[in-house]
Amino acid sequence: MELKETEISSQPIFKGRIVDLSVRTIQLPNGETATREVAAHQPASAVMAINDKKQMLLVKQWREPIKQLTLEIPAGLIDPSDASPLDAMKRELNEEGGYRADYWEEVTEFYSSPGFTDEKLYLFYCDTLTKLEDKRSLDEDEFLTSDWYSLEDLKRLVSEGKIVDAKTIYAITFWENMLLTSAQSTKADND
Amino acid sequence: MELKETEISSQPIFKGRIVDLSVRTIQLPNGETATREVAAHQPASAVMAINDKKQMLLVKQWREPIKQLTLEIPAGLIDPSDASPLDAMKRELNEEGGYRADYWEEVTEFYSSPGFTDEKLYLFYCDTLTKLEDKRSLDEDEFLTSDWYSLEDLKRLVSEGKIVDAKTIYAITFWENMLLTSAQSTKADND
Repeated sequence: MELKETEISSQPIFKGRIVDLSVRTIQLPNGETATREVAAHQPASAVMAINDKKQMLLVKQWREPIKQLTLEIPAGLIDPSDASPLDAMKRELNEEGGYRADYWEEVTEFYSSPGFTDEKLYLFYCDTLTKLEDKRSLDEDEFLTSDWYSLEDLKRLVSEGKIVDAKTIYAITFWENMLLTSAQSTKADND
Repeated sequence: MELKETEISSQPIFKGRIVDLSVRTIQLPNGETATREVAAHQPASAVMAINDKKQMLLVKQWREPIKQLTLEIPAGLIDPSDASPLDAMKRELNEEGGYRADYWEEVTEFYSSPGFTDEKLYLFYCDTLTKLEDKRSLDEDEFLTSDWYSLEDLKRLVSEGKIVDAKTIYAITFWENMLLTSAQSTKADND
């Protein structure tokens, strides 16, 4: 079954600081036309930062679209001046948390909600953290605090509906998975 | 530290079928003002549907915002006519997969990307599936196929960059977690 759709035209609606909205007219696989609303968004990086007490770093900040304070893993838009998603994340970890990490890994990449936006997220894992003396400033319109949470605390906060951000819930599940897998292999070694 | 921001005014930019865009002027915690671009989006439901061969159902469809075919768990907007997110999901599982499930659980709820949109997703788990004779039709502008995948296949597809949708990557990690946990408790019972 042919599934591909073809763009016929695109009507720009709005060019913002963060979001560019357009309405695209497309040709469907059956030859008919339809429209798709597309919110173009800069890519972003996010990080699971784990300290030597086995705690994860979360930042608390106001999110105007849902009008609530959220607890999220550190994240930020990738600026044109960033050499790579990883470089963007190192900068953000400094700005939002005031930390440097010596061990980094890329976990995965995904699109937040590809039905209406091209926003892409690069998710990293880091540990071996050092608190920085000379932390970078936050953006002028950015206000947040950061704190450390154990896996047990995080799972409770998710089940109580106090963590509601997709990438953060994913990071917690991924981390639990890492710990389960490493516990299994340790157990297998000891058996 | 005070983190709350207060809406001063909201300028409507566009009212679409799927997305309503506005630019809000807000007061920051320090008294200054700033703007936030907000894409309002209907909530949606998604499901991890597992058959008795331990395979997960994915649908393949064209996603215009990223101009590619994606593999995603079945999902759909919650219509005003749906009594609940669960009811919406039962309808979508019928439309997109042609299945009915006898066992349902809510896994979690999250916001896709709360920095710029209020899109909320209700994620369900279901199993004990029956193929339906009288499948509901897809929406007029919806073209997709569906297929079943083992956990091993899914993990390979993620690592090869062939699954790129956030909720689907989350569902795969969550499912792996369920299987690891149940394997551990079975092992503990047998020890």
